[in-house]
Amino acid sequence: MHHYLVNASLQIVPVVRDRHPYEWVDEVIAIIQSSGIKYEVGPFATVLEGQYDEVLKVIMAVNEFLYQRGCAEWISNIQLQIRSDGDITGEEKTAKFTQP
Amino acid sequence: MHHYLVNASLQIVPVVRDRHPYEWVDEVIAIIQSSGIKYEVGPFATVLEGQYDEVLKVIMAVNEFLYQRGCAEWISNIQLQIRSDGDITGEEKTAKFTQP
Amino acid sequence: MHHYLVNASLQIVPVVRDRHPYEWVDEVIAIIQSSGIKYEVGPFATVLEGQYDEVLKVIMAVNEFLYQRGCAEWISNIQLQIRSDGDITGEEKTAKFTQP
Amino acid sequence: MHHYLVNASLQIVPVVRDRHPYEWVDEVIAIIQSSGIKYEVGPFATVLEGQYDEVLKVIMAVNEFLYQRGCAEWISNIQLQIRSDGDITGEEKTAKFTQP
Repeated sequence: MHHYLVNASLQIVPVVRDRHPYEWVDEVIAIIQSSGIKYEVGPFATVLEGQYDEVLKVIMAVNEFLYQRGCAEWISNIQLQIRSDGDITGEEKTAKFTQP
Repeated sequence: MHHYLVNASLQIVPVVRDRHPYEWVDEVIAIIQSSGIKYEVGPFATVLEGQYDEVLKVIMAVNEFLYQRGCAEWISNIQLQIRSDGDITGEEKTAKFTQP
Repeated sequence: MHHYLVNASLQIVPVVRDRHPYEWVDEVIAIIQSSGIKYEVGPFATVLEGQYDEVLKVIMAVNEFLYQRGCAEWISNIQLQIRSDGDITGEEKTAKFTQP
Repeated sequence: MHHYLVNASLQIVPVVRDRHPYEWVDEVIAIIQSSGIKYEVGPFATVLEGQYDEVLKVIMAVNEFLYQRGCAEWISNIQLQIRSDGDITGEEKTAKFTQP
């Protein structure tokens, strides 16, 4: 794969009964934060921005973390937006709507 | 349905060849803005917050707009988060990650 | 909106701790079955096929059911595929892969 | 990660203007078929079933294929359902609705 920036949206939906799902989500966001990747927490998902391999590495680290920590069951909802010949950034999609 | 706040994520993916899909997305966001509902544009989707009927009304207005304007084909990706006995707000999910 | 067939994918993810989420999903599928709409149960979602208004009516009936039955919280993941000038059927997308 | 079966739903939405998107989707399904993994083509997505590493390998092979073949831009919609201490199969979720 190329080394351009890709955009990914990651939503974790724990299917658990021992804790409130948000507790798992908070721990997952801490994993994302500690990875150093560019991220933006939204109400439904966290958007990641980086090279394809970096982004996949974080997504897989999250799944590995949930497994190692004993999360009973979860659904990872992932959207990957990839352009063959260039970067995709969150800013290209939102700048005109968020700048004052 | 109740009158508590619900949260919705709306992503429109035009399946078209006459224009760049982002042009349709920009027009859809203008429809959302003109509806007066609380919204937040993100890189993958726009999050709406309001009463269930209000949120559905905006989602249906978007589909109606795309049809009336002759968008050839599109996929509406909708996530609705509903709590039976209370509000769901974007803030409850993101405040701890976005405040300084 | 037009009266052509649209395709929808509906996934209900209960966020509950009192019952196993699959129990709610089974009840939702029963609502879909009793609606008379054309449907296909898949491992992640149930695909609905019908006119736009019919499909929305079923989706809203499912949300109303979950509310009336006291499901604490849920996420409805909905994909609507709409073509402005014609039908969209599940078969047009899968026939070549499922026929013997 | 463990070696239990996981379930994944993969939907590819090409953002292209040179070909009809279904042409890319057909090629992607051929990649999935040639991988040997257990799969089921649905109207919105193809469900994959296998060990976590196998499933990820196929998903990444699809992205690599689209890049090497010059698909201008695409969105991979991926749902991964993982259980920490056991298999997840499509059948456990659909058997009661599809058997005669």
